[in-house]
Amino acid sequence: MIDQEELRDCYTSTPSKIVLLVVDGLGGLAHPDTRLSELETAHIPNLDAMAQESACGLTTPVLPGVAPGSGPGHLALFGYDPLKHMIGRGALEALGIDVALQPGDIAARGNFCLVDGDGLLVDRRAGRIPTQLSAPLCERLDKIEIDGVQLDVFPVQDYRFVLRLRGEGLSEFISETDPQVTAAAPLTVKPLAPGATRTAALVNEFVAQAGKLLAEEERANMVLLRGFARLPDLPPMGEVYRLNTAGIAAYPMYRGLAEVAGMKVIPTGHTFGDEVETLRQNFNNHDFFFIHYKPADAAGEDGDFDAKVKCLEDLDPFIPQIRELEPDVFLVAGDHSTPAIMAAHSWHPVPFMLHSKLTRGEGVPGFNERTCAQGSVGSILATQVMLLAMSHAGKLNKYGP
Amino acid sequence: MIDQEELRDCYTSTPSKIVLLVVDGLGGLAHPDTRLSELETAHIPNLDAMAQESACGLTTPVLPGVAPGSGPGHLALFGYDPLKHMIGRGALEALGIDVALQPGDIAARGNFCLVDGDGLLVDRRAGRIPTQLSAPLCERLDKIEIDGVQLDVFPVQDYRFVLRLRGEGLSEFISETDPQVTAAAPLTVKPLAPGATRTAALVNEFVAQAGKLLAEEERANMVLLRGFARLPDLPPMGEVYRLNTAGIAAYPMYRGLAEVAGMKVIPTGHTFGDEVETLRQNFNNHDFFFIHYKPADAAGEDGDFDAKVKCLEDLDPFIPQIRELEPDVFLVAGDHSTPAIMAAHSWHPVPFMLHSKLTRGEGVPGFNERTCAQGSVGSILATQVMLLAMSHAGKLNKYGP
Repeated sequence: MIDQEELRDCYTSTPSKIVLLVVDGLGGLAHPDTRLSELETAHIPNLDAMAQESACGLTTPVLPGVAPGSGPGHLALFGYDPLKHMIGRGALEALGIDVALQPGDIAARGNFCLVDGDGLLVDRRAGRIPTQLSAPLCERLDKIEIDGVQLDVFPVQDYRFVLRLRGEGLSEFISETDPQVTAAAPLTVKPLAPGATRTAALVNEFVAQAGKLLAEEERANMVLLRGFARLPDLPPMGEVYRLNTAGIAAYPMYRGLAEVAGMKVIPTGHTFGDEVETLRQNFNNHDFFFIHYKPADAAGEDGDFDAKVKCLEDLDPFIPQIRELEPDVFLVAGDHSTPAIMAAHSWHPVPFMLHSKLTRGEGVPGFNERTCAQGSVGSILATQVMLLAMSHAGKLNKYGP
Repeated sequence: MIDQEELRDCYTSTPSKIVLLVVDGLGGLAHPDTRLSELETAHIPNLDAMAQESACGLTTPVLPGVAPGSGPGHLALFGYDPLKHMIGRGALEALGIDVALQPGDIAARGNFCLVDGDGLLVDRRAGRIPTQLSAPLCERLDKIEIDGVQLDVFPVQDYRFVLRLRGEGLSEFISETDPQVTAAAPLTVKPLAPGATRTAALVNEFVAQAGKLLAEEERANMVLLRGFARLPDLPPMGEVYRLNTAGIAAYPMYRGLAEVAGMKVIPTGHTFGDEVETLRQNFNNHDFFFIHYKPADAAGEDGDFDAKVKCLEDLDPFIPQIRELEPDVFLVAGDHSTPAIMAAHSWHPVPFMLHSKLTRGEGVPGFNERTCAQGSVGSILATQVMLLAMSHAGKLNKYGP
């Protein structure tokens, strides 16, 4: 939507305020015993009461049937077509640990791995060595120096790290080293586009030096690199929608996604309570706020139905705190569904509600997959959520005479 | 939809008849006291009974969140993508007062305005002078003659008029003269595309002469021009859908929109009763009828909830009169919502029902925003309404073997 040239002149700046609460992994599926979803099971009186007064619907993050990663799930809610704009794995991984990427920087997702005497892969994840073992190895790799490029290695968690390449004329269009199977040797990096030859050679040199530095290690004596990527160059959503945007997130990846969308990222603490307090303190300074709630997704990914229910219940008391700020438009949405019974992101349409003075107010009895399917918004693409936010805030003028 | 090349061969001509009743500004929002919308408040037994036997749904005129003008709202129902086809302000204004536009003609929306001794704007609308004052001024401007172009000035209402330029090689790609603020001088018209230089010069000359002719006027001594436009060159909907189309509308703008869509406009009277009588008399001569009901929108735009309720109640007795004609497909739709509490066009999805022998028949208790949100048609784009009309009329063959 953000590129919808025809609507560009319809966006208008006003003092009204929009709060977009993204509940990560919000949607779910029924528990086989109770036939109730996580939202239907949870005791969430404040979300339920808000749904009654809101316009409800379901959002499809990418396309029906397509489960998105965190990148596409959030970009869509911010108004960017996730099929046109992709944040590569390496760049997303960097965002996830607060590693700054400048224009031109290339980031890769790295794994420590184990190879045998012939250089063939024995374990692609080095037995999932814990961070306290991998972090010192990262420090060692970080010292590698190669002419013409600045190389930095950052530990992520367990066997994972980020490699950042900084310098002139680097290209992300190079092949990966992970053969995706064991008993094979790591692959040599090849250029995939004109102008990528030098970057491929630099990365091969890095891998060779890493192999030497790690040769004596028993559990992790080699590295695998994939997902070479730079940050996408997106038009700032604030510029397109004429908003003064702010992002508030306790987890670095979501701060990174806010930054990619051109938002001002406001420092906050480690809990959602901290985030709400940050929202309150900065409420006068912006007219659009993205605020992120992570725990529900994590519980869903763990396949822990009860834990996800609990996370939704933990969120509920914060709803009145946000409503007390009296935003003109308050949306509760999700970047994707994470049904506990799947223990993974899924493609199922995500419950969504928009509260403002200008909604029909469905009078539905609660906020969940079933009630939202009956809502007046119907089933929409997540990229259209910002249009609804803008119009309900009086920031989207009539199209055409 | 109308450009949907893939479906072109599926449309087939049959004797079956379609009536599309467009209730202008049909959708609404709840009254703050009763929590009931205009449709929910109105006593409309015939519409309610029809909904029970119909396929119901909600239409989105352009995109979720986007409030359309009358042009995009109608074009969408006729099957034209409103984001691809725009009727510019000047052309729509001309249609609204029955001013004929030929191919090549350019029309502009004109305002009388007031400037001070230095030529700076004091009032962009000349104190909204009444038509009886502006009409004689239009007659004066209409006498302006400039070589190489035929200029005509038509009064609209109050301070508004239409300027029509007719001649060879005119271009609508010229800038407007309205600076949109006071204490500034009207802008000089500039060409915005190659080949528009001469038109820009002609219009500047018109403005200069208008300024001289009006110089002694106390309330309206200058003009502002904007929205230079020609009629869009649309494929006639009758040709695409293989229909013999007719448009019946008491208000000129809607006759104009029917004409833009290539319909035969049948002369009618000033009331909806006249329109229904015209429909009856011509029912054997066409297989598609667009019939327009205006009052609900006007009441909504006035912000008069009770008046809009009354307008819907006034429409209701005509429903059986139309059904007595036994059209194979009878659709009741709206070009957009005009909630009285907003006193403006809005983006809210518009209730819609389609009656034919081939519908499921929802058995819903009434025709309104809430019941239609539960309907079997779901939430669709307004551009898809004609596809439903065609299929239910047996005029849309199976796609693909």
